[in-house]
Amino acid sequence: MTAAALKNQQFRLAARPVGMPKSTDWKFTSEPVRDLADGEILVKTLYLSLDPAMRGWMNDGKSYIRPVAIDEVMRAGGVGKVIASKSPKFAVGETVYGSIGVQEYWIGAADDKTAAFNKVDGNAAPLPKYLNALGMPGMTAYFGLLEVGQPNAGETVVVSGAAGAVGQTVGQVAKHKGCHVVGIAGGKEKCDFVVNELGFDACIDYKNGSLKDGLKEHCPNGVDVYFDNVGGDILDTVLTRINMKARIIICGAISQYNNTTPVKGPANYLSLLVNRARMEGIVVFDYADRYHLGITEMAKWMKEGTFKTREDIVEGIEKFPDALLMLFEGKNFGKLVLEVAKD
Amino acid sequence: MTAAALKNQQFRLAARPVGMPKSTDWKFTSEPVRDLADGEILVKTLYLSLDPAMRGWMNDGKSYIRPVAIDEVMRAGGVGKVIASKSPKFAVGETVYGSIGVQEYWIGAADDKTAAFNKVDGNAAPLPKYLNALGMPGMTAYFGLLEVGQPNAGETVVVSGAAGAVGQTVGQVAKHKGCHVVGIAGGKEKCDFVVNELGFDACIDYKNGSLKDGLKEHCPNGVDVYFDNVGGDILDTVLTRINMKARIIICGAISQYNNTTPVKGPANYLSLLVNRARMEGIVVFDYADRYHLGITEMAKWMKEGTFKTREDIVEGIEKFPDALLMLFEGKNFGKLVLEVAKD
Repeated sequence: MTAAALKNQQFRLAARPVGMPKSTDWKFTSEPVRDLADGEILVKTLYLSLDPAMRGWMNDGKSYIRPVAIDEVMRAGGVGKVIASKSPKFAVGETVYGSIGVQEYWIGAADDKTAAFNKVDGNAAPLPKYLNALGMPGMTAYFGLLEVGQPNAGETVVVSGAAGAVGQTVGQVAKHKGCHVVGIAGGKEKCDFVVNELGFDACIDYKNGSLKDGLKEHCPNGVDVYFDNVGGDILDTVLTRINMKARIIICGAISQYNNTTPVKGPANYLSLLVNRARMEGIVVFDYADRYHLGITEMAKWMKEGTFKTREDIVEGIEKFPDALLMLFEGKNFGKLVLEVAKD
Repeated sequence: MTAAALKNQQFRLAARPVGMPKSTDWKFTSEPVRDLADGEILVKTLYLSLDPAMRGWMNDGKSYIRPVAIDEVMRAGGVGKVIASKSPKFAVGETVYGSIGVQEYWIGAADDKTAAFNKVDGNAAPLPKYLNALGMPGMTAYFGLLEVGQPNAGETVVVSGAAGAVGQTVGQVAKHKGCHVVGIAGGKEKCDFVVNELGFDACIDYKNGSLKDGLKEHCPNGVDVYFDNVGGDILDTVLTRINMKARIIICGAISQYNNTTPVKGPANYLSLLVNRARMEGIVVFDYADRYHLGITEMAKWMKEGTFKTREDIVEGIEKFPDALLMLFEGKNFGKLVLEVAKD
């Protein structure tokens, strides 16, 4: 196969969005795939992970990772297949996870530190799972909950975005650790799913009813650990129900990412004082040297049938801009994945 | 002496304030002092501690301590002298610290759990010091900084309300632990005091100039520990300068206590996420069983001359309502104390 015969379609950042990303914030480009140099590999993109964090990468300014530059291919983690290799590190046919970007092909040095490719075993689990519980969202949930949240058996754990990629795993890990687990999600369908399929003790539908009343009903002993993926009013309401020495894990604030006004800070943050409670941020990369521990434990539970995940798969790279918006509109049901190619 | 010959003037809460407390929120009453029953003591109030926390006690609602009831004598910690005793626990002439209330005399059981009287030694230190570094503000500063802030030598510690009761001690304890210490205070006089008298490395006058520029200049290595007494914009600005794994101690939010609009939550709280930082509340009572350790260490430093405190003493119980407002207007210079009687 001549690489040059391939056409690589890519989404590049055209402009820094103000508020919700618009179609004009993207450029959909195409370029031929060049030939491989020594030490390089060519990866065909199969599945891309679409995550709330992507919105932050589109902004200028200092953060935990540099912004995507204007005209640069949009950053995205994903699973691909090595279809050409001039490196001993990866053989043709192997599947890999890495920072592929929103494009059909990735080409570069096999040991590129930014892409950071690692082999994944498509026989051990379907590939999209490596973008969910066995990937970044899963690691975020696992280490954020256990290391920062430090839940004890019998304590009450609440998680927002409960049907999303991180929330699914937070709740199930907490159940495995003996906690009383209450999700917060938008809509009856999502709530039914996390209770009936994932085994949460309860789920509060914040779109239909009072979150405060729901917390009173389903967390009669208060909230010991709150894993926050959404920020805004939901964070503020949970803050009114926390227990002494509660731990709040700040994982994200999807309700605030597209603001054109300043972020809404948690007005009830003085509840931290009254309750001697703690609010702490988490970035998954800090736990990279222990990912294998989380993967091993969750893979074991999956095999036993006591741990489930759900993906919401959108097909076609050209769907990327619209698919990304689903996250911010709460339209995805399960971990949002873009299928660029089946194999 | 017949107790009944004494007249006890008291400030009682007349109404729950909306915003800044007004004169009509208080009732200034007088009642005769009754005779002592067995097991009781009569304490003559000498010095009362005026603290930002008092504003919170005037509000209805769940907090770390029950609200002062309407018509109840306003709660206040203070130092007094036992002038009559029918209890073996305290002898006439002894000086005590406890929750005396804003009144000239306290009468009740020597072992009353709410008043929680303890002897203090007026010969070891002037009595107002027991309302400052050797009292609640000092314990708040000492344990909040060391237990929650966990500062390491060489790290940068920033404290707001630097010339106030808690701030003075936070900064000096941090200096003793080998930290680079930067205060935030309002006005040149306060800033000069904390640098020249207390030995802070720098102090930023937030009323005259940019706090952000001041932090850039005086915290060239960023902020590792921030001890927050004020909340509001100052908290938000410091959040933009914190380091990885920074610790923010939430001790109070004096800028927000008299709000008639909702509390301003920290809009920059997502800096906790980016920096894997922590924001944690502290209430001093949690460390009661170790107060003696803090007192011992700070008393030693005082004796060595490496630890100073300043009180701002207002004379006369009738000044209470106006004196309290000084705190919220930043008019006190040092720990605010109300002198009810000299001895």
